[in-house]
Amino acid sequence: MNEVRIGIIGVGNMGTSHAKNIIAGKVPGAKLTALCDSDPKRLEAFSEQKHFSDAQELIGSGEIDAVIIATPHYPHTTLGIAALEAGLHTLVEKPISVHKADCERLIAAHQNKNLVFAAMFNQRTDPRYVKLRELITSGQLGRINRINWIITDWFRTAAYYASGGWRATWGGEGGGVLLNQCPHQLDLMQWLFGMPTEVRSYCQIGRFHDIEVEDDVTTYLKYENGATGVFITTTGEAPGTNRLEVAAEQGKVVIEGEGIQWTRNEKQTTEFSNETKGGFDKPPVWDIKIPTSGFGEQHIGIMKNFVDAILNGAELIAPAAEGIHSVELANAMLYSSFTDSTLKLPLDGAAYEAHLKKLIAESTHKKKTVETGPADLSGSFSN
Amino acid sequence: MNEVRIGIIGVGNMGTSHAKNIIAGKVPGAKLTALCDSDPKRLEAFSEQKHFSDAQELIGSGEIDAVIIATPHYPHTTLGIAALEAGLHTLVEKPISVHKADCERLIAAHQNKNLVFAAMFNQRTDPRYVKLRELITSGQLGRINRINWIITDWFRTAAYYASGGWRATWGGEGGGVLLNQCPHQLDLMQWLFGMPTEVRSYCQIGRFHDIEVEDDVTTYLKYENGATGVFITTTGEAPGTNRLEVAAEQGKVVIEGEGIQWTRNEKQTTEFSNETKGGFDKPPVWDIKIPTSGFGEQHIGIMKNFVDAILNGAELIAPAAEGIHSVELANAMLYSSFTDSTLKLPLDGAAYEAHLKKLIAESTHKKKTVETGPADLSGSFSN
Repeated sequence: MNEVRIGIIGVGNMGTSHAKNIIAGKVPGAKLTALCDSDPKRLEAFSEQKHFSDAQELIGSGEIDAVIIATPHYPHTTLGIAALEAGLHTLVEKPISVHKADCERLIAAHQNKNLVFAAMFNQRTDPRYVKLRELITSGQLGRINRINWIITDWFRTAAYYASGGWRATWGGEGGGVLLNQCPHQLDLMQWLFGMPTEVRSYCQIGRFHDIEVEDDVTTYLKYENGATGVFITTTGEAPGTNRLEVAAEQGKVVIEGEGIQWTRNEKQTTEFSNETKGGFDKPPVWDIKIPTSGFGEQHIGIMKNFVDAILNGAELIAPAAEGIHSVELANAMLYSSFTDSTLKLPLDGAAYEAHLKKLIAESTHKKKTVETGPADLSGSFSN
Repeated sequence: MNEVRIGIIGVGNMGTSHAKNIIAGKVPGAKLTALCDSDPKRLEAFSEQKHFSDAQELIGSGEIDAVIIATPHYPHTTLGIAALEAGLHTLVEKPISVHKADCERLIAAHQNKNLVFAAMFNQRTDPRYVKLRELITSGQLGRINRINWIITDWFRTAAYYASGGWRATWGGEGGGVLLNQCPHQLDLMQWLFGMPTEVRSYCQIGRFHDIEVEDDVTTYLKYENGATGVFITTTGEAPGTNRLEVAAEQGKVVIEGEGIQWTRNEKQTTEFSNETKGGFDKPPVWDIKIPTSGFGEQHIGIMKNFVDAILNGAELIAPAAEGIHSVELANAMLYSSFTDSTLKLPLDGAAYEAHLKKLIAESTHKKKTVETGPADLSGSFSN
């Protein structure tokens, strides 16, 4: 095989964007051959591809070698399982599923390891996070002591939430900012720092919007080595902030805007503290600016890597199996807030699934929606 | 009276610094006439003043009109009460007391309103916070939605904690970073934003140092209007951060280093969200840099204001009665962590006092100390 025939299921904001990128030749070795959406109007722009209204038909059609699943969140699980069982390479949008138990079901369906199974964690291609990960895994930062991520620049307007009946509902998305916007940062958190052992979260439901799910979150995290973390997000703030600060034994790293700022201690903090004679002394530092160029290939980078893995066995940037971690973090944050308690991880996936089903069953929120076309997200890293 | 005769009780790091500033003529209208310390060696440098080893003797001596109390924390209460009852104008170092119930006792002793009773909240003279307070109280920022203060540049070494047996003990200080270093920021928090209604804190005891009190704190705060806050501090981090971020309806303010950065929304966030038709639109902003010059007069500014209030009836920058709020915040953070719960304010001062007495009674930590002289804190805003 020297060309991968790709189908896309779900031609909303992200599906449309992915389709255009493939058609434009931005993903070498990929050919878009089919599209599937329950709304035929969304397919009108794509005259060269086969059209399907039923995802199972596309999966069984023989028209494709690989599928990109860009539907609303819940069908990621069912369609992912169907695609894998049908022998298709599969790239699933984030979150890979809505809750941990579904993640386990989806991942368990990946029996045939000849099939490439990836997740759209496009921010793993951002050179700032790639570089930070190198600093951590190489040991250059020393032990991590504290993490603070303020990711509040996911501003969404009332019109955004009115643009789809499924949006920001327990039944449609299974959550709000944690399930839709933040899977990227939650994935990066676990990719960079591993999973915490404790989570305490305060989520506010519909604080800034008329929705039944969380649009404001403050979370405390604790890690096995005693490190602490804070994760703050909302869709109700403008201009918002995207600032990651990491305090480690070898100094402090800040990512905000382009590049990485590392204030590097010449000596490790604790060692310096124990050796110096002055009570108010501080370790001498170097001010290091690590330049990075742009924000990476993002979605196109993940699609290129997916196709490269299929054609050439390239190592995946974002194996889908790793997608369970960001879902577990999102679930744990919600569950901690609902149960008003500090949760120890791993999360009880069955208990959370039961909780979520109860929220769906008891939902009484009436959502006002307005018909709109797909948004142009060519410059966005979200959906 | 055209000159205030001042005595200083406690000639350690801060007392020495205050004495030198008054002797150097930096506080117009003030004359340093007496000093008191139980350690006569600390008084040797001051040959022009009367020396006392017993604070009550100084208070009753007739040698002074006003007293600055710069002892370890617990005697702030007892000496403050004695000074006020003896008819002395009183300036007390922060924290005004160790716990809320003691604050109430101290404040209740201020019966004679002709006596000036102030607290050393020197950071209220910092033009950055003065300006931010103007932006808030004038309504220019609109409703405050989120506060994030990372104040982790209070790095203290092992030698610091070994420099005094009272340091960082429940019996000697009644806490760690929250009682010694952070009263400044806790005071500014309540001065700028008012008191929260809920506090959830995670304090780590002796995380970075061999001490029995907290040296690492992460706190979630909630305010009456739904605003959230995070307050993070430690003495174990270098280089550390001092960054205050405030998200309000009219945009975002950041104080880190000199000046104020205000990203001002042309339209208030929520109003914009409800009116715009685009789901991903953001309010247009102005990037505003408000320059400020330096960091204010700090301790000297508070002493000048204290003397000005005595001589000319000037309004106090930091009335001592307001010092209860920072103590209540510090107590609540510790109590929340010890009780592993979200506390609703106001704090039960009697319950906290009982808790603290229990910690003192059950203390088994053996502290290693090393004899040292007073540190030179002329460039420091802490003690």
